Amino acid sequence: MQWSKRAQEIDSFKVMDLLARTNQLTNQGKDIIAMGAGEPDFATPPLVAAAGIAAIDSGQTKYTPATGIPQLKQAISDYYLSRYKVVVAPERVIVTNGASAGLLMVFSLLADAGKNILMTDPGYPCNKQFLRLVEAKAKLISVDQQVNFQLTPALVEQFWDNDSAGILVASPANPTGTMLSKEQLAQLANSVRDKGGALVVDELYHGLTYEEDAHSVLEVDQDAFVLNSFSKYFGMTGWRLGWAIVPENAIEPIERLAQNLFISPPTVAQYAALAAFEPKTIAELESRRWQFKERRDVLANGLAKLGFVIEAQPQGAFYLYVNASKFTDNSYEFCWSLLEEDGILVTPGIDFGQNDTNHMMRFSYTTSLENIHRALERLAKRLG
Amino acid sequence: MQWSKRAQEIDSFKVMDLLARTNQLTNQGKDIIAMGAGEPDFATPPLVAAAGIAAIDSGQTKYTPATGIPQLKQAISDYYLSRYKVVVAPERVIVTNGASAGLLMVFSLLADAGKNILMTDPGYPCNKQFLRLVEAKAKLISVDQQVNFQLTPALVEQFWDNDSAGILVASPANPTGTMLSKEQLAQLANSVRDKGGALVVDELYHGLTYEEDAHSVLEVDQDAFVLNSFSKYFGMTGWRLGWAIVPENAIEPIERLAQNLFISPPTVAQYAALAAFEPKTIAELESRRWQFKERRDVLANGLAKLGFVIEAQPQGAFYLYVNASKFTDNSYEFCWSLLEEDGILVTPGIDFGQNDTNHMMRFSYTTSLENIHRALERLAKRLG
Repeated sequence: MQWSKRAQEIDSFKVMDLLARTNQLTNQGKDIIAMGAGEPDFATPPLVAAAGIAAIDSGQTKYTPATGIPQLKQAISDYYLSRYKVVVAPERVIVTNGASAGLLMVFSLLADAGKNILMTDPGYPCNKQFLRLVEAKAKLISVDQQVNFQLTPALVEQFWDNDSAGILVASPANPTGTMLSKEQLAQLANSVRDKGGALVVDELYHGLTYEEDAHSVLEVDQDAFVLNSFSKYFGMTGWRLGWAIVPENAIEPIERLAQNLFISPPTVAQYAALAAFEPKTIAELESRRWQFKERRDVLANGLAKLGFVIEAQPQGAFYLYVNASKFTDNSYEFCWSLLEEDGILVTPGIDFGQNDTNHMMRFSYTTSLENIHRALERLAKRLG
Repeated sequence: MQWSKRAQEIDSFKVMDLLARTNQLTNQGKDIIAMGAGEPDFATPPLVAAAGIAAIDSGQTKYTPATGIPQLKQAISDYYLSRYKVVVAPERVIVTNGASAGLLMVFSLLADAGKNILMTDPGYPCNKQFLRLVEAKAKLISVDQQVNFQLTPALVEQFWDNDSAGILVASPANPTGTMLSKEQLAQLANSVRDKGGALVVDELYHGLTYEEDAHSVLEVDQDAFVLNSFSKYFGMTGWRLGWAIVPENAIEPIERLAQNLFISPPTVAQYAALAAFEPKTIAELESRRWQFKERRDVLANGLAKLGFVIEAQPQGAFYLYVNASKFTDNSYEFCWSLLEEDGILVTPGIDFGQNDTNHMMRFSYTTSLENIHRALERLAKRLG
């Protein structure tokens, strides 16, 4: 048996090997400070957990409509009105089995075999794999601090080709934490509309912003596709629940994809998520936001003092993407050495693309402030 | 914007329109007997529900390893030893986000663009769509009562071509409920091995068998791919949890697919499923099995008396696939009329393929014996 070309080409994340080794070392009693994960260290908010328990207790464990229960679609619609002042009809809200399912469906809808979607390098590693899965392609565009690690209309103009079906941007972005302003979103929407393509915006880290709130692309473009998740801001990673907002004319084909590929999103998670928008939950999440901000500031200052270079100011998410060229030309090896010798788990840049990624590393500040201080001390001992 | 060809071609299920109308009628106070669903009417077993609640209570709500928590892989491995007397290393157990995710990953692994997998018509409608998604194809083979609605080595010999990568069979099958014996599985394994292809077996309805227990293909072929689910026998539909058993050399590529496409299966569901193999749960499920058997017998006798023809004896699952040619040459219209005039929801044959499906209909006996009697009375009044 020979496996398909796509199965041979869809890579694992390098950090997975580091993570496996971390678990080994931890089991051996080693004290490892884990700054590799794309997952908040906070628990699922209490009201959400309680709503999940109530759902199980009351037998809410059957299949639901393929695009989600009406109450949750309505709650998400209400959230857009209150948070972004935009009207989103509940029918346009597609509740998904994690944002992963949203990416799969939106890319499947947009990109025929051989077609491409423009996206940044560095970027979230799975984006390109969803396109590879369906025999389409990610057209990776190297971005740097000059463009705040984001696509621009000029880059779209430069790289768009006859096979391009759309572009994907993320605000705040993983791994860089940079954001797109409302004006930048509007400009990108215009430039993609001119090309006859689709604009897809990853808004998964909305809520986790530390200077200004993030704008939704829907404030400036109702034809865009939005991807979001209950994982990051709402602290519901393991529940595997996300949502997409799609334009009116995409509802029907997306629903067909959802029926066939997923049957329905996880039911208990959907009922739990109804409590995610409760004022008490939001208050809890906002207090967590300020803890993230403090961690970011301490870690960014500490890393900068040691000689790591943060090339663009991270305004959101829970990552710092740093240039470590003062210390290494092989950040993957450097990550291994940090793990083995200093007990710090960091994600190597190579997981996010090929754009100078041998110099880059991503620190997640999804660990306590105390651990961040301890990690900085260990780094100082090694590098200082 | 034009949507991709695949998004245009991946059909909805016709029963979805009937289901939407059912909900409308029910909300208007009409008494509809629903025999359309592929979902047990029984609740999630109490110990499983309790384990789900305990998982939430103890904060088990984070990402897990991409192919599942070790305890669940071990529990499934143990289940194969006790139930089928086969040794399956826990590493070969891939816990999935519903069997849907298993189908997606296994087909993605096996079938490059343009390649095909042989499968029966009639069959579970989504199978072909997972292949369409990745630009591969289902090669649908019309089967009838002569072959018990199953593939045979002769059919494999006849339809295998240069682009064939494997075959999919289901035992018990949806919609027909027919099964493959251990000898038939071994023969199919041989014939596919001779071709250098892969054998994929849908074992989702194992446990729901009413004459003989189903054999797993793993009893005769350790190289086969098995798909299974906690949805049907274990009554956990909305939890979206399934598993695949893959050959040793497929573990690594499947794990890469799982990481990229799903991140991890739903966490609460995984902890809940640990209680699925408890003796007390199995006892409860076995008592349900005998209720299903009684329903099947009553419904099959009643439908036969009315003139519906059950062409092959259904030995498992919870469906009767009947020929209604005595009453209609358009079973889709007939299903609409049964819904509107008689208050009975049944799935039209067209949802399962194109093989004489205008004469066929699928009754699910996922409703109470009382409802089954009432449905038979309504049918008798109309057709008798």
